Amino acid sequence: MKKIWIVYLLLIACFALYVLDFRAQQSRMNEQWRTGGLRGEIGEKYVMVTFQMGIDYWKSGLKGFEDAAQALNVSVEYRGSTQRDVHEQITVLEQVIAKKPAGIAISAIHPSLLTATIDKAVDAGIPVVLFDSNAPGSKAYSFLGTDNYAAGVEAARKMAELAGGQGEVAVVTAPDQQNHQERTDGFAATIAAEFPGMRIVEVKNGKGDQLASRQAAEEILRAHPSVAGIFATEANGGIGVAEAVRAAGSKAGSGPRIISFDTDKGTLDLVKSGDIAATMAQGTWNMGYWSLQFLFSLKHGQGGSPNAGTARIPRQADTGITVVTRQNVDDYYAK
Amino acid sequence: MKKIWIVYLLLIACFALYVLDFRAQQSRMNEQWRTGGLRGEIGEKYVMVTFQMGIDYWKSGLKGFEDAAQALNVSVEYRGSTQRDVHEQITVLEQVIAKKPAGIAISAIHPSLLTATIDKAVDAGIPVVLFDSNAPGSKAYSFLGTDNYAAGVEAARKMAELAGGQGEVAVVTAPDQQNHQERTDGFAATIAAEFPGMRIVEVKNGKGDQLASRQAAEEILRAHPSVAGIFATEANGGIGVAEAVRAAGSKAGSGPRIISFDTDKGTLDLVKSGDIAATMAQGTWNMGYWSLQFLFSLKHGQGGSPNAGTARIPRQADTGITVVTRQNVDDYYAK
Repeated sequence: MKKIWIVYLLLIACFALYVLDFRAQQSRMNEQWRTGGLRGEIGEKYVMVTFQMGIDYWKSGLKGFEDAAQALNVSVEYRGSTQRDVHEQITVLEQVIAKKPAGIAISAIHPSLLTATIDKAVDAGIPVVLFDSNAPGSKAYSFLGTDNYAAGVEAARKMAELAGGQGEVAVVTAPDQQNHQERTDGFAATIAAEFPGMRIVEVKNGKGDQLASRQAAEEILRAHPSVAGIFATEANGGIGVAEAVRAAGSKAGSGPRIISFDTDKGTLDLVKSGDIAATMAQGTWNMGYWSLQFLFSLKHGQGGSPNAGTARIPRQADTGITVVTRQNVDDYYAK
Repeated sequence: MKKIWIVYLLLIACFALYVLDFRAQQSRMNEQWRTGGLRGEIGEKYVMVTFQMGIDYWKSGLKGFEDAAQALNVSVEYRGSTQRDVHEQITVLEQVIAKKPAGIAISAIHPSLLTATIDKAVDAGIPVVLFDSNAPGSKAYSFLGTDNYAAGVEAARKMAELAGGQGEVAVVTAPDQQNHQERTDGFAATIAAEFPGMRIVEVKNGKGDQLASRQAAEEILRAHPSVAGIFATEANGGIGVAEAVRAAGSKAGSGPRIISFDTDKGTLDLVKSGDIAATMAQGTWNMGYWSLQFLFSLKHGQGGSPNAGTARIPRQADTGITVVTRQNVDDYYAK
């Protein structure tokens, strides 16, 4: 009887030790996690605000925003105007501000008409960054987007590669929009500076429209039948230019080389068929991912800048450009 | 005897349940931490490489690098050449690469002579970013630094504020260096575009040297005795200009307003005394903090860009500028 008591006591003691060891392990683990790692609260909500919120273009940016939120253990919400309508976007932004979110990343439909509302958010203590389309006069802490001049430089180098560094090239653009003018400037400056065998013979206004761009390209092909390449600074224009080249009787890949912009389905299909030689993909995932990282940093004051008044995040981030060709086009279809 | 057996069995069952519950809790916790929070390993070492590694200028950038490392639970090492010597920096970089660190942030002493060594690091699979001084032809994934044109724009607006938007202004710069030319360009373009009451009457070469800048400023003061302000695009020049203004008999704050650049002790002392009205502080903490964040992101492939070949970090980050005046100068002395 006494023996069996001792056996039971030993057994119980073993279990007790096991349990205590677990407790100690757990508290060590808690300690460790408290002292390191960037991690928010799941109740911390960051909002992305766009315009024409249903279009494909925003998908990759939102994916980046969500990926960063998952990495940092915070929540996101996607809002925006359904139409390309300034007043609707202002209303949506007002609604978002009223809920006092942890941060707002907004793509401004207009460079100045959103400024007062953006400033209202900043004045209410909400971290705000702009992405893709800037509102330069606002109090937002940062802008993340494409350096359009640099994108034009890249397009020129790709064009030179496609044309073997020789021949006449043309541009179809939308000169009224600053980002398109910058793409054209970067393209023209690079052709002039780096490729003495090449020359820009025409810069035409395609008005951001497929039909107008097709007509512009037709005029270019008539005036310069031996044109080696055409750079379209936006997607509708690229599709229009491809139609003109095909209508002129060129088989895919045999006529003038076309470089377009962005990665909507229509453009990707023409890259796949060889009608468009290359298209410039913007770093939209980067815009979303780093918008959330910047907002998180503003919200948490991570690390803390040693200098009062010095912002804790970059003033501006160029989210980069990738050249999409037949080789890698399959990676760019929306998933 | 049977009763006591049952009691013991119940007791053992209770302990067993308790232990199992602990196990379940722990595994839930592990799961939670695995899916949320950015956190590296303490054995993961990121290296910052500079030149003239002992000077004050790097302190704030290194602090940012260390702050980010602490937040992410990784380690850092600070390396660099002791002198302003290209070959010494190349040797240091070679040594760093040989140790296969988790990432390298380097400020290149020369825009092209480091390129081959930087590319060697990238080809070896080591994440590399450049900060403060770029090597634009290298394979490094990003550059974090001051947008010097934007800094010139800010300086012009501050100058207009100091001068009440009226009068003649001059620039003392180092035109051989691209970053200084950009500061001058941003300053000149902004005065011309935004302040019709102001005019730039001289742009002099101060050669990045205190004495040469003093002489340049003396010539400006002789030719234009009523000059309202002088912008010095670098710190030695700012000190030289301040000497010239003082020698011309102006008491601190009564002569032409001086705007200088950077926050070395000599400049800060002159801001404190009122001889220099304002100096432009670069976002050096930002350079270090976000260099480490970018390297961590490259190393861990956090989130993962959906598009093959698309970089996961911004191509370039403008780390911003803050205007330092007598009001906030105390925050900028090295701590």
